[in-house]
Amino acid sequence: MANKIIKAIHERRSRREFTDKAIAGDDLQEIVRAGIWAPSGLNNQPWRFVIITDAKIREELSATTHYSHIVLGAQALIAVFLDSEVVYDPVKDQQSAGACIQNMLLAAEALSLGGVWLGQILKKKEQVCQILDMSDRYELAAVVALGHPAHYDQKSNRKDLNHFILKTL
Amino acid sequence: MANKIIKAIHERRSRREFTDKAIAGDDLQEIVRAGIWAPSGLNNQPWRFVIITDAKIREELSATTHYSHIVLGAQALIAVFLDSEVVYDPVKDQQSAGACIQNMLLAAEALSLGGVWLGQILKKKEQVCQILDMSDRYELAAVVALGHPAHYDQKSNRKDLNHFILKTL
Repeated sequence: MANKIIKAIHERRSRREFTDKAIAGDDLQEIVRAGIWAPSGLNNQPWRFVIITDAKIREELSATTHYSHIVLGAQALIAVFLDSEVVYDPVKDQQSAGACIQNMLLAAEALSLGGVWLGQILKKKEQVCQILDMSDRYELAAVVALGHPAHYDQKSNRKDLNHFILKTL
Repeated sequence: MANKIIKAIHERRSRREFTDKAIAGDDLQEIVRAGIWAPSGLNNQPWRFVIITDAKIREELSATTHYSHIVLGAQALIAVFLDSEVVYDPVKDQQSAGACIQNMLLAAEALSLGGVWLGQILKKKEQVCQILDMSDRYELAAVVALGHPAHYDQKSNRKDLNHFILKTL
């Protein structure tokens, strides 16, 4: 068990190209369910989700980001929001959104799917909210693009561990 | 594999009481290594870490939070920072810190350890930085308290999945 979890963490990659196979609705629910098991400050559970598979809406959303080809090629998008009526601390709630998204990405890989965290789309968050017909109550945190990976040869890298550990006391 | 990863995500709990068994140095490194495999915007890898096992420093840190009993009872603390010379977007970098911390907590559980994410300590972050002798360059994001769990009967709850999914389009 130990190794499988840590291996999954190390082997997760951002998948940006997908086949045209649709994602089962149950899998999308499973991914969101993994998301909500993230920790949150005071267990306030501030995350909200919009699941998008509709081709026309995906096309509209593709115009809101530099990465339109990913949005167009994905079989599903999950827009992650913070509920302004629930949040309590701007830093901790955004951190919790990050923990939630990481769970979602790990769950996608565990379901033989793949995903990529789209942050650049935040530059047009008002436009995204308009397309999704969301009220001001919900603040866009990120969009996750999902699909069946077209290939698995993504490379990534990290600096050496010693670069990150500043001190051991 | 699929089920094991998702099961691990669902079964992670905040562990707040620990035995007095020390944590192996290799395990602490493994936990940080899991953290740095989080995604970050532009792969900027903004996280930095201070690993603390020294009893005197843990005692000093315990005075900086409401949760001093957790800090005192933990066998190790990992303080997570963002490097101000590397960050590029306040929202995305804090989200990435959250993804990093979630990886660390999942890795801890996978190593038969347990941990809890301490956010309340941010109220005294200047004092924490002073105790750890950190320059202004590093901004405290959270402290993770770690140990061998004294028990495994922690309960948690989440609202129903439908509460979180606002729309399916």
